Amino acid sequence: MTEYKAPLRDMHFVRDELLGLNGYYQSVTDWHEVTPDLTTAILDECAKFCENVLAPLNRVGDIESCQCQDGVVTTPTGFKQAYQQYIDGGWPSLDVAEQHGGQGLPHSLGFAVTEMTGTANWSWQMYPGLSKGAINTVLIHGTDKQKELYLTKLVEGTWTGTMCLTEGHSGSDLGLLRCKAEPTADGSYTISGTKIFISSGEHDMAENIVHIVLARLPGAPAGTRGISLFIVPKFCVNDDGSMGERNAVLCGALEQKMGIHGNATCVMNFDGAKGYLIGEPNRGLHCMFTFMNTARIGIAIQGLSHAELAYQNALTYAKERLQMRALSGAKLPGKPADPIIVHPDVRRMLLTQKAFAEGARMLIYWTSSYLDIMTATTSDTEREEADKLLGLLTPIAKAFITETGMEAANLGMQCFGGHGYIAESGMEQNVRDAHIATLYEGTTGIQAMDLLGRKILQDQGESLQILAKIAGQFCVEQSDNEAMKEFVEPLESLMKEWGGITMQIGKAAFSNPDEINAACVDYLMYAGYVIYAYLWAKAAFVAQTALSSAPAEEGFYTAKIQTARFYYQRILPRTRCLVQTMTAGVEGLTNSGWDEFDLQYA
Amino acid sequence: MTEYKAPLRDMHFVRDELLGLNGYYQSVTDWHEVTPDLTTAILDECAKFCENVLAPLNRVGDIESCQCQDGVVTTPTGFKQAYQQYIDGGWPSLDVAEQHGGQGLPHSLGFAVTEMTGTANWSWQMYPGLSKGAINTVLIHGTDKQKELYLTKLVEGTWTGTMCLTEGHSGSDLGLLRCKAEPTADGSYTISGTKIFISSGEHDMAENIVHIVLARLPGAPAGTRGISLFIVPKFCVNDDGSMGERNAVLCGALEQKMGIHGNATCVMNFDGAKGYLIGEPNRGLHCMFTFMNTARIGIAIQGLSHAELAYQNALTYAKERLQMRALSGAKLPGKPADPIIVHPDVRRMLLTQKAFAEGARMLIYWTSSYLDIMTATTSDTEREEADKLLGLLTPIAKAFITETGMEAANLGMQCFGGHGYIAESGMEQNVRDAHIATLYEGTTGIQAMDLLGRKILQDQGESLQILAKIAGQFCVEQSDNEAMKEFVEPLESLMKEWGGITMQIGKAAFSNPDEINAACVDYLMYAGYVIYAYLWAKAAFVAQTALSSAPAEEGFYTAKIQTARFYYQRILPRTRCLVQTMTAGVEGLTNSGWDEFDLQYA
Repeated sequence: MTEYKAPLRDMHFVRDELLGLNGYYQSVTDWHEVTPDLTTAILDECAKFCENVLAPLNRVGDIESCQCQDGVVTTPTGFKQAYQQYIDGGWPSLDVAEQHGGQGLPHSLGFAVTEMTGTANWSWQMYPGLSKGAINTVLIHGTDKQKELYLTKLVEGTWTGTMCLTEGHSGSDLGLLRCKAEPTADGSYTISGTKIFISSGEHDMAENIVHIVLARLPGAPAGTRGISLFIVPKFCVNDDGSMGERNAVLCGALEQKMGIHGNATCVMNFDGAKGYLIGEPNRGLHCMFTFMNTARIGIAIQGLSHAELAYQNALTYAKERLQMRALSGAKLPGKPADPIIVHPDVRRMLLTQKAFAEGARMLIYWTSSYLDIMTATTSDTEREEADKLLGLLTPIAKAFITETGMEAANLGMQCFGGHGYIAESGMEQNVRDAHIATLYEGTTGIQAMDLLGRKILQDQGESLQILAKIAGQFCVEQSDNEAMKEFVEPLESLMKEWGGITMQIGKAAFSNPDEINAACVDYLMYAGYVIYAYLWAKAAFVAQTALSSAPAEEGFYTAKIQTARFYYQRILPRTRCLVQTMTAGVEGLTNSGWDEFDLQYA
Repeated sequence: MTEYKAPLRDMHFVRDELLGLNGYYQSVTDWHEVTPDLTTAILDECAKFCENVLAPLNRVGDIESCQCQDGVVTTPTGFKQAYQQYIDGGWPSLDVAEQHGGQGLPHSLGFAVTEMTGTANWSWQMYPGLSKGAINTVLIHGTDKQKELYLTKLVEGTWTGTMCLTEGHSGSDLGLLRCKAEPTADGSYTISGTKIFISSGEHDMAENIVHIVLARLPGAPAGTRGISLFIVPKFCVNDDGSMGERNAVLCGALEQKMGIHGNATCVMNFDGAKGYLIGEPNRGLHCMFTFMNTARIGIAIQGLSHAELAYQNALTYAKERLQMRALSGAKLPGKPADPIIVHPDVRRMLLTQKAFAEGARMLIYWTSSYLDIMTATTSDTEREEADKLLGLLTPIAKAFITETGMEAANLGMQCFGGHGYIAESGMEQNVRDAHIATLYEGTTGIQAMDLLGRKILQDQGESLQILAKIAGQFCVEQSDNEAMKEFVEPLESLMKEWGGITMQIGKAAFSNPDEINAACVDYLMYAGYVIYAYLWAKAAFVAQTALSSAPAEEGFYTAKIQTARFYYQRILPRTRCLVQTMTAGVEGLTNSGWDEFDLQYA
């Protein structure tokens, strides 16, 4: 079974030393009491809960799975009790605005809770995690009455929420969905249809579940312009807030999946269920996109979780497992063999996991700091810039962190040799759980199209320019720093190359829009590697600065610089491949001999 | 559930058109009757068995797994019957020499059977597959009496075999093994100890199982020089060949694994079991290495299997699944959406799987043709050269094909979107099954050390020079072929670079042997990509030549050239990354802050 120790030191490094979040919180009136002491206390408390309560349930969830009997779902042993502890601790309300019953703490702090709960037990974390979508929907788009009836309990956590979007024939293409909403005399709607892949769709951990459902009104336009959002509660809610009758929404079945078995992935049948319109008619997708960034960062954290869990456990194993001798001579001659951590190839695998996990942590907290700015700033310019950066960074974070997180999970398993394949190690579960992250909440391909097709090519490169300015500023500040040259020179070169490639692809796309889809995934991965290069350079600088004052934690900071160097030497060269493949063009993908096999073009 | 259609057209392309195996068979006296008609008939018959009997059992095996009760193992429904059909069809004896009761057909034909049975149902294929190691052990190293008692039934398939090497504390490092062999008065030995991860270790498909066990004689030297090989049958065999008493070897438990559930992975307890020395004392590992190439090619096929299964099913899905529209305008406007195969990003994923599956097929049959030469040739020079090439190609085939096979399996699942994560699709099973291939029969790291540390750097680059000569010859033959320029120029450049890099690493290793382990995996992957470049260039040339005579199968040959082009444009650039990372050196891997955590060097 895998073990989890909350990586608090690294979390503090990223939050306090790299990003200066404590300083930022202090600069915001509403966050004056979010002191370093408070933050530390919150993270420590969360760490204990995650290590002692959630992590031991991770394997339980995988073994027991959820059970469904006549629409009643039982979660794995201990999940329900853990959830009660979670809401007793006030965790669900952490970063919800005070005016809506929350504690009003910054999103960047909320994501730290997601990191720890998610790494300890991603399946479990999806129960409170899916509630956030429902909370945001009601909070941003709900009427006062809807907020009164649903928001308080959702924010407390006594009720949970789900997002019901996907249907059998409509996943990436939500415009195809068919669920129907018919108006009734009392202003509510009758919802009919079937949704699939509904995470946390039904369970035994809360007295009510608030489903947010995409459905089509009668006479609505076809496609994405005809989709509306509805609140469909498991139990109807009376005007006075008390629970009413059971609504006609039922879990028809649980999906048999590759992993995340502890989470109930449901087929939800709406059989004339009572629903309530939220937001304007036919503006459903638009409403949902208002909190798309928050949702995507939440899933990006899954990539971090699996990389971190892989790294921690592979590192422990590599120090204990004795096999063979270092080629340069036995390192522990008194033992029957050397611990495998002496082998450079094993260190390569460990360092790759470390670089991806710590890089992901930096990107996630950096991205989430722009969510903080969006919440807190009074400056329109600052908000606009934060919004543009979020738009750029979020799809990259979601796709890049989940893809590299899966690679790290694979490497962690590989470090265990044959034992990694055995269930007891927990390493193969980590791989199975990781595999969903590149698929849901928008596949890697969907994120890439959002990045290149929408964010980059539709705003005349504005957001990329903002990013380039930030990275460029950093490089200029380092221009006299000889010790930073090994990072800054490649980084400057990459930022310049990135701009050039973007223009090249944009030009090709002008003649043939298919060039965008041909380039987009490689483009996104390239972007991710370059952004990590910026973050690792920053991390190296922070570590160098700390080392110059001879700190007690010399080992920690030295390792930070060495990992940055490893990143530049062993991972960043992937950009040399991507720079070629992303400009290879659509021509080489158009013909392949498949067209003769039954694919008839109209 | 995944479906399987034996890719006979491509198998014939590789075997007959690319490699000219039919012509080679005819040139060997013993193989005169291995005509194209016979080969085609054999492949067709095997294909039917695999498609109709084995493939439908693939999911059954995953769902039911094997069961163990008091050491008695039951295999999944249908496995036993399928095995009976397999031995009734004479398949186990196909490529065993006639003098040993086999059909004496070439190994390259035997591997075609492995490809098809393995892709249809890898878990099932491991039952007859593991027998091959036992067959080779007895065949090459057994006394006449041992051959008489064990070989016939193994070759018929009425008995199966296993290879019992691994122990809890000794996997990659076989020198650490502890199983004991004590001599007894009658010349047999008493075997005691526990082996783990024994594939096909116990089952209900054959009346006897012949375990080949590595164990240590009393007073044997420590490490790898003190290991001997023993035959330990499940039922002892009387002098007249009849089955005797049950031996003291028992399946203690079945491992719970990530995949290949249909195969019984056993803990085998030897409680004073009767064993018979095979080969010279203390020469056990050496004996096993005599057929290491055959074993490794067999596992390399697993990478091909999962890539092929992924590709076939992802291609079918991509043609049927309607989501979104091509950016350049609807391709099937009459349908609610376009099939996802119109999207360039999906085609990129499909072409990657295709390039890896077809590339693997070429490498496997090409490598196996050298096994044919080793069997058939009367020329010492030819045998020596074949042996050297086998030594070079085999670890590359094993590691590169299984690593890229896993990538292809992942991509196949990704093509299905969220549905790929659902058990019913069969795509997630394919990924789970694929994951063991980079681990057993020597991890990727072990293959890489064998390639770089032993094969390349210990023979003064001789084997690499033989390979370079072959590729170089091909390039020279194409020097006037304008249509081949796009392949030949990069290929020549890569072969030259490969030689240079090898010298550079060799030089560094001279000063510090750890440089080998620091470079080896990236080196092996680089070698694999370059070898595929050679094979894809050859394939393009064969296709071009075929096209020049306006064949009926224009689509097939055109697709071949386009896939070769895709390989060069979209995959081969990975060498631009590897050429940097493999020469990054061991320095960047030596320190990482781990040494402060409990690792005390002596």
